[in-house]
This record gives sequence, C-alpha cells and structure tokens, in this order.
Amino acid sequence: MYDLAIELRPEDERCLYQQIYEYIRQEIREGKLLQGERLPSTRSLAQYLQVSRSTAELAYGQLVSEGYLEARPCRGYFVCPIEGLFDLKAEGEREPGGAEPARKRGESFRYDFSPFAIDMSAFPFGVWKRITRETLSQDNSRLFSQGDAQGDWELRATVSRYLHSSRGVNCTPDQILVGAGNDYLLMLLEKLLGSRVRIVMESPTYKRAYQIFQSFGYPITTVEVDRQGMKAGELFRLAGERDGVTAVYVMPSHQYPTGAVMSIGRRMELLKWASQGENRYLIEDDYDSEFRYRGKPIPSLQGADKGGKVIYIGTFSKAIAPAIRVSYMVLPSSLLRRLREECYFYSSTVSRIDQRILDEFIRGGYFERHLNKMRKLYRGKHDLLLESLGPFRGDFEISGENAGLHLLLADRRGRSQQELLTLAKERGVRVYGMSDNVVAREPQKRGPATVILGYGGLREEEIAAGVERLKKAWL
Amino acid sequence: MYDLAIELRPEDERCLYQQIYEYIRQEIREGKLLQGERLPSTRSLAQYLQVSRSTAELAYGQLVSEGYLEARPCRGYFVCPIEGLFDLKAEGEREPGGAEPARKRGESFRYDFSPFAIDMSAFPFGVWKRITRETLSQDNSRLFSQGDAQGDWELRATVSRYLHSSRGVNCTPDQILVGAGNDYLLMLLEKLLGSRVRIVMESPTYKRAYQIFQSFGYPITTVEVDRQGMKAGELFRLAGERDGVTAVYVMPSHQYPTGAVMSIGRRMELLKWASQGENRYLIEDDYDSEFRYRGKPIPSLQGADKGGKVIYIGTFSKAIAPAIRVSYMVLPSSLLRRLREECYFYSSTVSRIDQRILDEFIRGGYFERHLNKMRKLYRGKHDLLLESLGPFRGDFEISGENAGLHLLLADRRGRSQQELLTLAKERGVRVYGMSDNVVAREPQKRGPATVILGYGGLREEEIAAGVERLKKAWL
Repeated sequence: MYDLAIELRPEDERCLYQQIYEYIRQEIREGKLLQGERLPSTRSLAQYLQVSRSTAELAYGQLVSEGYLEARPCRGYFVCPIEGLFDLKAEGEREPGGAEPARKRGESFRYDFSPFAIDMSAFPFGVWKRITRETLSQDNSRLFSQGDAQGDWELRATVSRYLHSSRGVNCTPDQILVGAGNDYLLMLLEKLLGSRVRIVMESPTYKRAYQIFQSFGYPITTVEVDRQGMKAGELFRLAGERDGVTAVYVMPSHQYPTGAVMSIGRRMELLKWASQGENRYLIEDDYDSEFRYRGKPIPSLQGADKGGKVIYIGTFSKAIAPAIRVSYMVLPSSLLRRLREECYFYSSTVSRIDQRILDEFIRGGYFERHLNKMRKLYRGKHDLLLESLGPFRGDFEISGENAGLHLLLADRRGRSQQELLTLAKERGVRVYGMSDNVVAREPQKRGPATVILGYGGLREEEIAAGVERLKKAWL
Repeated sequence: MYDLAIELRPEDERCLYQQIYEYIRQEIREGKLLQGERLPSTRSLAQYLQVSRSTAELAYGQLVSEGYLEARPCRGYFVCPIEGLFDLKAEGEREPGGAEPARKRGESFRYDFSPFAIDMSAFPFGVWKRITRETLSQDNSRLFSQGDAQGDWELRATVSRYLHSSRGVNCTPDQILVGAGNDYLLMLLEKLLGSRVRIVMESPTYKRAYQIFQSFGYPITTVEVDRQGMKAGELFRLAGERDGVTAVYVMPSHQYPTGAVMSIGRRMELLKWASQGENRYLIEDDYDSEFRYRGKPIPSLQGADKGGKVIYIGTFSKAIAPAIRVSYMVLPSSLLRRLREECYFYSSTVSRIDQRILDEFIRGGYFERHLNKMRKLYRGKHDLLLESLGPFRGDFEISGENAGLHLLLADRRGRSQQELLTLAKERGVRVYGMSDNVVAREPQKRGPATVILGYGGLREEEIAAGVERLKKAWL
C-alpha cells in the first residue's frame, strides 16, 4: 500500500480535492506510483489527510474518469496501466462548459478567462433549498409518477410566459418541449428533421453545436459572420435542396463568439429565405440573451417569424446554474405535429420534481430577481475588464462588448494566435483562441489573430490581476 | 365567459382534476363549448369549484397538451379550432409508461391492468425528502456546477457496486454512463454505434425500444422467442454484416412481454455469436430484474461476457419512481473509448443534485430496503392474481409467472385478441394485447390470442374486483 505524502495548503486557491488530485496525478506521471499499485481507501486517505470522505472520493473520481486510476469493486483503487491513459487527450479537449477547465486540462492556470464559466456566488441557494423543501413537503406523490413527454404543462406555461415577456417569443405552452440540456434537444430535433438534413452554420460558431451536428452525420455548410451577424444573403446562393431539409443554426441576439447582433435587414433576409422552401428551418440558439448591458434588449428572431420557420432553443443552465439540466425548445406547428405523430414515444428527460422546483422559482419572481442581480454583477465585471484593457487598445482591437460573458481582442501586431496563447500561458493565464471556433472547411481569408477573454467565472480582483499579467505577456 | 356546471364527486375514484378534465373535454366534444370560446381562469375556476389552483391548472394543462384548449399568454384559455385536435390519436396511442394510461387514452376504465404501471404507495417519501434536505443543506454549491459528462463519479461507483453485488455485472465506475432515461441512453448509443447499424430484436419485444430503433432508421431483423428466450441459434443464419454493426437487443433475465428467462445454453450461443465479429454487440436491457419472486436471481448476461460484447442498460425509474429520470449504461472498453474520443462533447443529462440524492439513497441502504419491500408487495399482488385466476385455467393457459409485474393469458377457445379486449372493455376493464408487441415484419405462425395482465399499479382489492369482472367477460 502506497503512502501519500501530500501537504494540503488551505490557503491555496485550489480546493482540497483538486490539490489531492493534482498531487496523485503528478506522482503517477513521474512514475512514483507504479502501474497496478494500490492506493489507500478513500476512508483511510480522508482520515490521514483530515478531509471529508467525499473530498477524497472526488479526487479519486477525477483520476478514475481521466484514466489514471482504476477502481475495482470491493477491492480498492489501483494505478492504471499506461494504455489506460488513452483518453487523456480527449479529456483535455473537453469543452470547459463551466467546470474548472484548467483542472480538466490537467494544467494549472492561475487565471482562467473561460467564456463558458459562470458566477455561482450570487445564486440564491437558500431560496432554492426552501422551494425544494416545500415542493417535497406538499402532497406531491404525483410528482414521482411519469410526466408528460413534452414536460409538465405548468412549467411549459411558465416558460412560455417568460419567453413572451422577456424575449418576444410568440408561442403557446403546447409548442414548448422541456429537455435535459441543449445537447439532448438537438438529438431530439435530429429525429424530427429526419435523416436528409443539411445544416448551415455561422463561422466562427459555437464549437459544441458544430461537433454535435457532425456526430449526426449532417453535411455542414458555413456562412461568414461580420459585424451585422451572419451574411444571410449568401443563403440564397446555396444549391437548392431537393427533398431534404436545410436548417440554419444561428445566434441572432448575440453571436458566439463574435458577439455580433444580427441586423434587422439580415433577420428579414433569413426569414425570407426560410419562407421560400417548405423544408427550410431556422434554429435560433438564444443561449445568453439574458445578459445584455447596454441598448435595449434584442427581441428574438422567433418573434418576427410569421411562417412557422423558427425553432427556438434556450437554456436555464447559464442563467441559473449548469447543474439545472433544463433547456427548452419552441417548435413550429409542422414539427410539433411530427413530434406527436412520430416521436411521441420519447419520454421526458427531466424529473417532474425538478420541473416543479424550477417552475416555483420562476413564478415566485426569484428567477427575475436573480437575473437582475447577475446582470449587475456581470456588467460590473464587464466594465472592469473593458476599462482595465485600456492600455491594450494600441496593440489590440477590442470588440464583443454590450452583451454576453466575454470580449474579443484582435492583435494588431501580426502575432499568431498560438503565440498569444503561449505568452499568456507562461504567465499562468488561460485565454481562448478564436480560430478554435472557426468551423469553415474552406480556407478563411486570414484576419488578425483574435483571443477570447471570458469574465463570468472570475472575481473582479482576479480579472484585474489576470489583465496585469496579460499586460506583461502581450504589451 | 363560459360558466362550467361541473359537479365534483369526491367519492369518485377519479381524482378531482381528472373529473374536471373529462367534463370539459366532454363539453368540447359535444360542441357545448365552441371553438374560440374563452374559459374561466384557473384562479376563478379553483375558487368556483373549491379546489386548489394547481388542480385546475392540471386539468387545463391536460386539455392543452391534448389539443382541446389553447393557452394564450396573458389572455387565458380558449377552446381550440378543430384542427387543433390533430394529435388526439397520437396522444391516444402513447405508451402508458406508468402514467394513468386510461386518462391518456381519453377513455375511463374502472380497472387498468397496465404492465407499465407501478406501485408508489410504499415509496419512502420521508426518507427521500430528508436526503434532499440534507444534500442541499451541506455546502454543496459545487453540485450546482457542471458535472462529469458520464455522470458524477460517486454515483457511478455506487451503481457499479450495486450492479456487481445484485446482478453480477462486472464493471468499473468509469465504464458506467448515467443518463436521463433509457430513451436518451439509446440515442447516445446510436452515436457510438454509428450510422451503419442493423438491430436484431426478439419478437414479441418491448414496443418502445422497437419504435426508438425505427426512428433511428436502423433496419430491424426479428428472432422468435420461446420458453427458453430468444432462439439465439438463428443469429448464425443471419447474412454476415460487411463493415456495419450488428447489435442484438435482448432481455435475457425476464423477456418482455413473454416473461421467458433465457437458458444458459442460449446465452452461450449469444456470446459465441457476438465473439465471432468485431462489430457485433449485445444490448442487454435488464429492465425489471429487481422483481423476482421464485427461484434464485438470474445473473446478468454481461457478467458472463469475457469479450467486451455486452452493452448493459438498466434504470431506476421502475425500481424507485418513474420521475427519477436516471438510467445507466455499462459500456465495453471499445465503446467507452469511442465515447471519450468521439462523443466527449455530449454533456450530462442528469442534474448533479439528483445524482447525489440518489447516491445517498442507495449508499444509505434505503434503496435495498425499498426493493425488499416492493418485492414483497408485488409478490403479494402476483400471488393474489395468480390464485384468483384459478377458474381461468380451463379456458386459458397462464404463463410469465415468477418475475416482473405482469402475467400472460393465452386463450384456448380460439377467440381473437380484439374479442377478448372488447369483452373486457365492456366490463370497464383494460387489458393489453400481446400482438401489439409483435414486431416481426414476416407473418407469424398464428398462436392463440394472448392478453397481458399487469398488476403493479393496482391495489389488491382492485386486482380481485378486476378479475371478477374478467370472469363475467371471458368465462
């Protein structure tokens, strides 16, 4: 049995399980822990280190899921054979999606400007707990039975009201489908659209959506984005589809990652293009429209759609918490019909209890209050970042302000993206490269190297300190 | 504004919202409520009828989701135009899946022998509430962040221990993927198996799985089932696949609906067949193996698999509660690798909070206690049904005992299945036809008409009374 000489540093910004995780991973990488070697049980490790058992389990869990350790039921934890590490790379490439990306990459950055991280510090845990308690203490045994495949009607009614008032979405509760996350909703949409589907995406775009459409085997065409959003005019130049479906995946209110807001003209072009073919659809991903700091809110594309062409998708994972696996899709009548005639057997993916809790959270006005709080909070971080980036304006062009949780810096000195990322990394700062979001197969005309700075997950002092380091790195 | 003259009958076995729902639906069907007519708000209806608001909302909700009513945000509820009723049929055809099927069909049966309904009366609501409270009251803000795509490791470790001890499943936590229901797991499996997949199913089989594979566009071949389970030998006579995958979907421990337990010989044939091709897999759906009343438990097929050929799928929806949208899939290393290399971007579909609650429920021993309680409860119902069916033994052959939540009655008098269903319906009893589960495209040799009697969702007195009516109907 191997003895772990870990010195935990409470003052370290890394939480305890992360310190344990990184220590053991290091030991394995350096060969101090050998293949097949057995580790102490979580119980004895917890006692030894004076931490809670779940802390120890969490550390081991991370190591197992990354392929460093292997858990043999009833026997314990063993160091994996090298080939057990096959998935490290894939692990490394995982989308941060808010979950300490630096840890996932097996690298430790002091400051991580992830565009996917969000701030949970202001989440009203107390309210959530109370609502949960109340929901369970009413006689709600019916909540434990199977619910409607589209989601419970009460929640759908609440969501439709919310979308109507806040996003100008024009729908009835029976058009809404509640599902466990956007990825699932896209999977279900695949069933509704059928097999002969071509997807048109903006480039750059949200990489995960691109990967998902790819995994569907859909041919993907891309259209460039400029300051007015997707160049919708190019859609008319696409080869006309025969009997297959053509669906355009767009983020009109706040394009990821460029931050462009699609102009009214372009929106009209989109809708016009869609209206010209029975099998044309627009998939509107309204992923973070809740967070807008200047100018009046941009109404959804769906609200302007008269022809039943827009499939509207949104999520509570960003506005409330990533763990709240509740997203929603608003279907036009043609697809709603297909859902009920051909896909009625897919059962709901969200627990009714969770649906009820979320419903109460919104109806009680807590969601709106939380959004206002978050808007202020993110706006503060946004302004601070923008301000502290003042000295960068000579060497960089800054864009993507006014909304969302990230800014863009385009280099004016002709340096490569990799160069900028490496310079930042050497200072312990993680930034993200725009080109990772470019999905066009055709070679793009080379623009300036652009990096993405997300600020949602960082505290204000971290933003300031991170920018200081970036100054040293880049200016 | 239309005035509803509903007389609620508390003594009626139908719950209040159902009475309201059925009354209004009747009014619409009979044209007493006209298209476009506005209904009272849920608040005023609740006041008027002296019921809770959520009861009124539930009734309206059902009517909306079935297309009778339309909810216009901020305006109220209106009777739909007739074409709004297009989905009634589809609604009617929905799989009961435990949710008051009679209501879903828009028919009212006094006794419903649904094979999908389960008994929630013994569910330890108190324990569940306490665990939920405790889970939220610990400092678990991390539970609100994004979790591992495969599910949190703690729960996967717990599930692997449970599967190892109770089902002889041989796996490590990192082989387990936790997802929001079997339907979702099959969708993800579709991504892992690729596009060129042929499915082999038992016939009769679980209809929903068949519908789902169909919606994937997979060609489906069927193999007959006898008392020893699937005739595995026939697999060797299938045309050899070229570069595509061939996956056999089986329920070896308790075949649905026949109840057959696959013999050891057949299991070995299955595994042998799978071992003869790199792209051959066995999908083991262990859907209700928890409920076995006689004989020693049947170990899983996965436990006997040495070649990494079995994909094991199970769910907590049946053993705990349908609302608990947690199923699990155990992947062989080849597919686990593909998951991490090609599908790592699909994020988890189960809230971490729910994962933790379930984890505590199992670790605390409450799950096992609940299972034992349910086994006794279901066994009692099973024995009662079997006993009260004594008088039927002349006219029917009874089978499918020893496990699961339903029995089969095969008619000896040469009557058609429809005849039996209709006779039962005339007595207010709903039974289910075996032929609805026959998915073979080729004409089957005509066996005797067989009906399915599920007893999970009925109280003992209801079972007795229901059988009395069946006597009058069939004997």
